[in-house]
Amino acid sequence: MNRDVSIGIDIGGTKIVAGLVTNQGEVLYKQIVPTATEGKEHIIFQLQQLINNLLKEANKLRLPTLKGIGIGTAGQIDFKKGIVRSGTSNIKYWNDIPLKQEMQRLFGFPAWIDNDVNVVALAESYLGAAKGYDNVVFLTLGTGIGGAVIQEGKLLHGEWGGAAELGHMSVDRNGPECNCGYNGCLEAYASGTGIANQMKQYLIKKPELYDGSIENITARDVFQWAYEGKQHAKSVLDDSMDALAYGTVNIIHAFNPSLLVLGGGIIDQHNWINQDLQNRVRNLGISSLVQSVSFAKAAFGDEAGVIGAAYQCFLYSKNVQKEGASYEG
Amino acid sequence: MNRDVSIGIDIGGTKIVAGLVTNQGEVLYKQIVPTATEGKEHIIFQLQQLINNLLKEANKLRLPTLKGIGIGTAGQIDFKKGIVRSGTSNIKYWNDIPLKQEMQRLFGFPAWIDNDVNVVALAESYLGAAKGYDNVVFLTLGTGIGGAVIQEGKLLHGEWGGAAELGHMSVDRNGPECNCGYNGCLEAYASGTGIANQMKQYLIKKPELYDGSIENITARDVFQWAYEGKQHAKSVLDDSMDALAYGTVNIIHAFNPSLLVLGGGIIDQHNWINQDLQNRVRNLGISSLVQSVSFAKAAFGDEAGVIGAAYQCFLYSKNVQKEGASYEG
Repeated sequence: MNRDVSIGIDIGGTKIVAGLVTNQGEVLYKQIVPTATEGKEHIIFQLQQLINNLLKEANKLRLPTLKGIGIGTAGQIDFKKGIVRSGTSNIKYWNDIPLKQEMQRLFGFPAWIDNDVNVVALAESYLGAAKGYDNVVFLTLGTGIGGAVIQEGKLLHGEWGGAAELGHMSVDRNGPECNCGYNGCLEAYASGTGIANQMKQYLIKKPELYDGSIENITARDVFQWAYEGKQHAKSVLDDSMDALAYGTVNIIHAFNPSLLVLGGGIIDQHNWINQDLQNRVRNLGISSLVQSVSFAKAAFGDEAGVIGAAYQCFLYSKNVQKEGASYEG
Repeated sequence: MNRDVSIGIDIGGTKIVAGLVTNQGEVLYKQIVPTATEGKEHIIFQLQQLINNLLKEANKLRLPTLKGIGIGTAGQIDFKKGIVRSGTSNIKYWNDIPLKQEMQRLFGFPAWIDNDVNVVALAESYLGAAKGYDNVVFLTLGTGIGGAVIQEGKLLHGEWGGAAELGHMSVDRNGPECNCGYNGCLEAYASGTGIANQMKQYLIKKPELYDGSIENITARDVFQWAYEGKQHAKSVLDDSMDALAYGTVNIIHAFNPSLLVLGGGIIDQHNWINQDLQNRVRNLGISSLVQSVSFAKAAFGDEAGVIGAAYQCFLYSKNVQKEGASYEG
């Protein structure tokens, strides 16, 4: 098999990772910079510098002509048009940016841009935990909850790329308000922020159980207290897992996947969640659907974003060639 | 355009409709029989008789060679294998039937079989309310709630055909138990059965409000009482619509459709639901997703099932020919 190489860029709230990535998922070279906080022009300037550095390095390494530039970024992405529609609270002024076009104009390479969870799903699908599976759902549990769906081997984008907002699936219409404005979202129960908030609400009602500062409680505290056997924390985590199980069953009913891949910081740090979730899910919902799903942990760690971002180029550049377009320099 | 003709069969709990259908959705001839209640052999025998009659009629009408046999049936269908996995409480012993293979063996035509809501979605997608839309969600509100999803112009089947069980999306993990065994399903609130059950529960708690027999209450009663201005019925319907709105927003977050098509007996009889649901949905959830969805009423009535069932043959027979197989007699 030929070793193709692309540029992959993972734009997160705190850092931007840019790398030269092979179609086998090797990261040959990478650079990391803290995400600019002054707005979009600054981030685009950072991308320019990073890509220039990578191009020099590719030259030094005598790599073949690069296949393109693939970008994964937090926020809502119009995949077809290649536009960042609206970012996230983590990246300031990161909205209404025709990033695909801008990258193509600046560097003459074909470029693709997608949501950060979608590109992680590509990495896992073609090179990681979901290799060989055609119908897969990905859930990442971190500060928030992200989702991505592979249907018949392809990322599910919906009309403009906004599909698979699985963290914002409500499992209780009378439940707590989520950051997104909706109620009872999975993210409001089972993300890092959600777990911390639920613990705070619990202790506000029973202040006699805690003499510290309730505002400063984090999900890490809740997990720690639960490991120490503290009942209030165990009770909050049990409720978070119950909500997560209902959300997962809803997702299985909607997509009929054969594999569910769990990733993100919370999953990495708390191994028991995968098995606990499986046990709960198998006792809920429509048996033929919930029983036909396997569970797996994401195979890639930190580099999943940059690998998946780059993988877009290997996957989609064939179509570019088919359509007769050629941006390769 | 050539006028192709196929056999379409719609197997429901009370009746089987079989017709000769053109690729423009005209039903040239049809027969209806009550669904046999004695078990699968009897239903298959009914199908044989119906198809034989249609073949004779096609001959009489000097129709071109039929493209195939398309079947839509209630229940869980393994679309790839062409097997009825498990039927519904409405059709007895309607499970584990290799119906596609059986039809092909008996008649020498290519055959396709899918879930009843999926084939209705095909009819609406190619000939009806969703013509020209690539990303569509269908919800049918009748005795139960059915769902179907078109993504990038294709029916979403999932791993074996069980996807889009949208009636069994929970919007309250502490909500009422559904027929399926899960809790807080859309179907438990907003289907005919769900609305009747919610009214019964309401009146069991306040028996002074009703002097009739609570067990015999139907959804029709609830709608009638609400039109008469009775507060208890208005309150139950308001809650059903709230649950339906949350379920619809969940579905929009999952699939990012540009169109939502509502159909089924409840929608046909109560025109206000479409607008009421829109108003509620637009005030919930993630704005970029809920604001980019249009709402429409299903265009086909009773014949949607038989037309959509037949439409499978026009849609999929190209692939059969591509793969080199030919069953046409």
